[in-house]
Amino acid sequence: MKKILMGYDFLREGFAPLEGKFEIIYPDKQLFTKQEIIERVKDADVLVPNFSFQTDAEIIDAGKNLQLIANFGVGYNNIDVAYSTSKGITVTNTPSAVLEPTAELCFALILATARKVAYYNHELHNGKRLDWSLFGDLGMPVYGQTLGIYGMGRIGQSIARRAVASGMKIIYHNRRPLDKEIESRYNATYVDFETLLKESDFLSLNAPASKETFHLIGEKELRAMKKTAILINTARGQLVDTQALVKALKDKDIYAAGLDVFENEPKIPEELIGLDNVVLCPHAGTKTYAARIDMEHEVAKNIINFFEKGEIDKVN
Amino acid sequence: MKKILMGYDFLREGFAPLEGKFEIIYPDKQLFTKQEIIERVKDADVLVPNFSFQTDAEIIDAGKNLQLIANFGVGYNNIDVAYSTSKGITVTNTPSAVLEPTAELCFALILATARKVAYYNHELHNGKRLDWSLFGDLGMPVYGQTLGIYGMGRIGQSIARRAVASGMKIIYHNRRPLDKEIESRYNATYVDFETLLKESDFLSLNAPASKETFHLIGEKELRAMKKTAILINTARGQLVDTQALVKALKDKDIYAAGLDVFENEPKIPEELIGLDNVVLCPHAGTKTYAARIDMEHEVAKNIINFFEKGEIDKVN
Repeated sequence: MKKILMGYDFLREGFAPLEGKFEIIYPDKQLFTKQEIIERVKDADVLVPNFSFQTDAEIIDAGKNLQLIANFGVGYNNIDVAYSTSKGITVTNTPSAVLEPTAELCFALILATARKVAYYNHELHNGKRLDWSLFGDLGMPVYGQTLGIYGMGRIGQSIARRAVASGMKIIYHNRRPLDKEIESRYNATYVDFETLLKESDFLSLNAPASKETFHLIGEKELRAMKKTAILINTARGQLVDTQALVKALKDKDIYAAGLDVFENEPKIPEELIGLDNVVLCPHAGTKTYAARIDMEHEVAKNIINFFEKGEIDKVN
Repeated sequence: MKKILMGYDFLREGFAPLEGKFEIIYPDKQLFTKQEIIERVKDADVLVPNFSFQTDAEIIDAGKNLQLIANFGVGYNNIDVAYSTSKGITVTNTPSAVLEPTAELCFALILATARKVAYYNHELHNGKRLDWSLFGDLGMPVYGQTLGIYGMGRIGQSIARRAVASGMKIIYHNRRPLDKEIESRYNATYVDFETLLKESDFLSLNAPASKETFHLIGEKELRAMKKTAILINTARGQLVDTQALVKALKDKDIYAAGLDVFENEPKIPEELIGLDNVVLCPHAGTKTYAARIDMEHEVAKNIINFFEKGEIDKVN
């Protein structure tokens, strides 16, 4: 029987399809330390990591029998994919399961930040009275505004679908323009990065963490944005230079930000916490029971397909 | 020159179309008291009220020259419309200007409540750490869920348009079913009130305040709803029995509520403020600069059309 090492105390119900077909090792606590992974991965055929540790060369070398790293998540900046591949180890992820929940959370942040729902709720729950008068404490509209999407992949397109129905105009930047047919579905216009910064009322980051996207948004980019712009990051904290963002929010160089991810999660810088014009979430893109179960199902499907059908969904 | 009495210190820019054509009286403070309205309405041809006072028989009788009450707002529960009509005074409102902003705020509440954006933000801004683990502090999905709309008028349909693009199934209850053509636009199904309560994962109230809708949602209705249901009220506070809602939220008879309106605005009951599973907004359906200006433009258009063209948009 092939052996699966789970890196986390996942819910059993989502992995039910694996039962009886594989030997499955779960941690007897929330998660294994890296050292514990290294010890236990020796005779595992499959490793299921998540973002609580880096699956680096040390772990990969320790996994003498390892054939598959079946990631729980869509990003794979927690895995040295190049090194895995060089050792003949396949890497899979869960793009289907995370698609709608992540786009949904992104759109929730767009609305909660612009229309000040999160701010109002915070103040009212803290017993503040707020300004209920007609022209006090106004938010920003979403309808009729331009949404700029950096990274128009599947999640970006799913956000665009919601945005179009909400009366937004879509511009986007990618390494390459999309097919005309996809563009026309969202009436989306390809623009260069400079134009994206300059014309977006809302700028949503939807690209993976990589050398190329590290601190994609820094001081210069924030200054190029509209004073009335709202920055939304539901991708990875590393895409934004936190100190530059704090400064821009303090100086009102941009209107506000909605952040689901941070450079040193789960730590959130004190300076962000103290600001009125930032909405904060605890990496909640897939933080629903349904999404977690769907992710487990996708991991299970990837493992089964790999061994039974000899095929995998392409990492994307 | 016809004389307009403004009940509130509105922004001048939205009423620019009226300048030079009418004599316009604004309060020299935020708003006139009712007594001040009664004194000043005597020789006014038009009164522009908002929700800060009731335009009742006493005010209407005092307005000897009154031909038009041009409401700033879509609801007209602040005006005795029947009495105005009986005296030959026309009443107009601003349904076009409030349409998209209100639907937008409603959808913002659906997302912020289900996906816990408002709760997460509140806790994080209060310096709490929250549970960042994979299975802690989970929210509810919106995608794939059923949205029940009570009052499928223009705003209800605008919400439905956003909901469909967000992967929701639409059911609704109205006095009468909509035309099949409108139903099919949103793939919406007409159901009776009982079914609406029973089958909605999200129940959105979008009906005006009236005798018929007073405490539409009380103890019995809340008990008929799913334990996992979320109630959204962006219509009028009077539609919900606050005490029954507090009890249902405390007892977890429903999952959560998102409220933009309250029975005794701007007062919010202490018991609601103390609950984790309610998102609170300060009647913010049109709380953007753009929406306020659009509302003023619509009031101005109503006044000009009434005197110059002798026609008005139907109150709806």
